Amino acid sequence: MSFDFQGIATQFVTHYYTTFDTNREILGGLYRENSMLTFESSQSLGAANIAEKLANLPFQKVKHEFATADAQPTATGGIVILVTGKLLVDDEARPLSFSQAFQLCQDPQGQWFVFNDIFKLVFG
Amino acid sequence: MSFDFQGIATQFVTHYYTTFDTNREILGGLYRENSMLTFESSQSLGAANIAEKLANLPFQKVKHEFATADAQPTATGGIVILVTGKLLVDDEARPLSFSQAFQLCQDPQGQWFVFNDIFKLVFG
Repeated sequence: MSFDFQGIATQFVTHYYTTFDTNREILGGLYRENSMLTFESSQSLGAANIAEKLANLPFQKVKHEFATADAQPTATGGIVILVTGKLLVDDEARPLSFSQAFQLCQDPQGQWFVFNDIFKLVFG
Repeated sequence: MSFDFQGIATQFVTHYYTTFDTNREILGGLYRENSMLTFESSQSLGAANIAEKLANLPFQKVKHEFATADAQPTATGGIVILVTGKLLVDDEARPLSFSQAFQLCQDPQGQWFVFNDIFKLVFG
């Protein structure tokens, strides 16, 4: 458990939200066949369904700013991350708070991918 | 992956916050030797350290109300949970929003315990 899980998590989260905000059609590449997304309590299973869900979210523009991304290693070589932050959708002036939990896993080639992804808006 | 992960998660979360609010000295029993807690970005490793951290948090009274607890199974038989909710500390009138991510694992006897726990206040 001595690998740099926090560094990998920060790098992943930065890449994830940058891609989400500029080209979310290609986010599917970060998921695999058995990956899961729970987006505002709506569930998608598998990279293809997740990619479709993310591409078809009902907004054109989005900008995420994550404030914190706390990571822990798992018992099986993965990484659990809890992100908190704000996002701005389309031409809304008021940002929304969100939280997102990820579990990253590594494939046999050493590539990290998202196995678990749970996204939730937080209303203050 | 056909076990009732959402039911187990809801039951766990209900038990966790009820215990936290009434008798948080005994929360250590939900963790094991290699369990991790990240509480407001401060890290504790192992049930004994986690129990001590939770018991010594700088408030007397706390009341959690969780709004959502979305769960997913992991690739290795665990459960990832993202909780959002509010809490009220001591005699504060204004609730604070929080998010918390858990990974639950099962021991060889079938008992669920917390392996990963990341808690974060969310400021609106």
